[in-house]
Amino acid sequence: MKLSFSPASPFARKVRIAAIELGLIDQIEFFPAAVAPGQANDEYSQITPLKKLPVLILDNGDVILDSYVIVEYLDELAGGGKLIPASGPLRWKIKTDHSLLQGALDAMLLCRYEKMVRPEGLRWQAWSDDHWNRAWTAMARFEPQIDAMLARPLDIAQIALACVLGYADFRFADCGWRKAYPNLDRFHQKMLERPSVTISLPPAA
Amino acid sequence: MKLSFSPASPFARKVRIAAIELGLIDQIEFFPAAVAPGQANDEYSQITPLKKLPVLILDNGDVILDSYVIVEYLDELAGGGKLIPASGPLRWKIKTDHSLLQGALDAMLLCRYEKMVRPEGLRWQAWSDDHWNRAWTAMARFEPQIDAMLARPLDIAQIALACVLGYADFRFADCGWRKAYPNLDRFHQKMLERPSVTISLPPAA
Repeated sequence: MKLSFSPASPFARKVRIAAIELGLIDQIEFFPAAVAPGQANDEYSQITPLKKLPVLILDNGDVILDSYVIVEYLDELAGGGKLIPASGPLRWKIKTDHSLLQGALDAMLLCRYEKMVRPEGLRWQAWSDDHWNRAWTAMARFEPQIDAMLARPLDIAQIALACVLGYADFRFADCGWRKAYPNLDRFHQKMLERPSVTISLPPAA
Repeated sequence: MKLSFSPASPFARKVRIAAIELGLIDQIEFFPAAVAPGQANDEYSQITPLKKLPVLILDNGDVILDSYVIVEYLDELAGGGKLIPASGPLRWKIKTDHSLLQGALDAMLLCRYEKMVRPEGLRWQAWSDDHWNRAWTAMARFEPQIDAMLARPLDIAQIALACVLGYADFRFADCGWRKAYPNLDRFHQKMLERPSVTISLPPAA
């Protein structure tokens, strides 16, 4: 299998961590892809019109996206019910938590594009503020839940939360999440004990 | 159960169609929610920090999001394997198709915000063009697949495609998708034979 990859993509990082934790990483070859809004990438658009990272290309040529569906696919390949509980209320809790964190990452990416990629004279502060606020208050949701999260076996919500916090460090280094959310800081440190989380840290910004 | 709803939201429409087709609509009460980027909605942000439609609130107070996870939840409630195949290659095909179409809707929404919501002097044409292109080429992916899609029992990818096309009519009435994609036009007409699809059409723009 081949996975489109960039060390800067928090969505690709999530899949990478999942693949390592599921014992499948040796079956996956990374291929680099660079995407940016407003810039064409015709070769990659042929693979996915959404021009987003990551996609998984199976050996028979089938393409799987998005990052969440890829994790579901890998989880099934590893036997099922590993990173996403197969049934019960916890299944829906973890799926919902993952959606929240995925949405937080989407919002952070929109902030980043607004502040760094869009031409300077065309930036709209209310847009950045709104989207940052979504990510920030999504983080706040997890602050009182950290003990419960850490008591569970590793799951896709924990991986996604580590990716949100790593992305905050990478692209919003001054946002002060550690001070605002000391439990998330403790969670992040705990997650960094996993080689999968450490090896996949984004590069220095 | 309660579902946050707006007749203008293609994501809420997808859940509504799914709930009707699964025979669960009578168990769901809609509550209105209005969200727009750059505008606060503190009450709704308490329910979901992402400030997006829809969310499903269960009778015990648990919240489920996003629209795809809600459909998965309803599908399970209806016995499982109805709108999303429970296993096999078609499961991953349909999930991937749904992700593509979900991404197309996200891209269309970003276009709409750029062209209609953002202050006029702050609009970036390359951003609109790029995101419209993603949606447009995502539609193109389905043009040669329509016969195969129509031959399958109803699934979440078909519902999502109907929502993409309905949203194109609603917000991009002049885009000319029917002329560019005659098979999609035929698909859309076929889908409109379902009361669930007709009753949920967006209001006149």
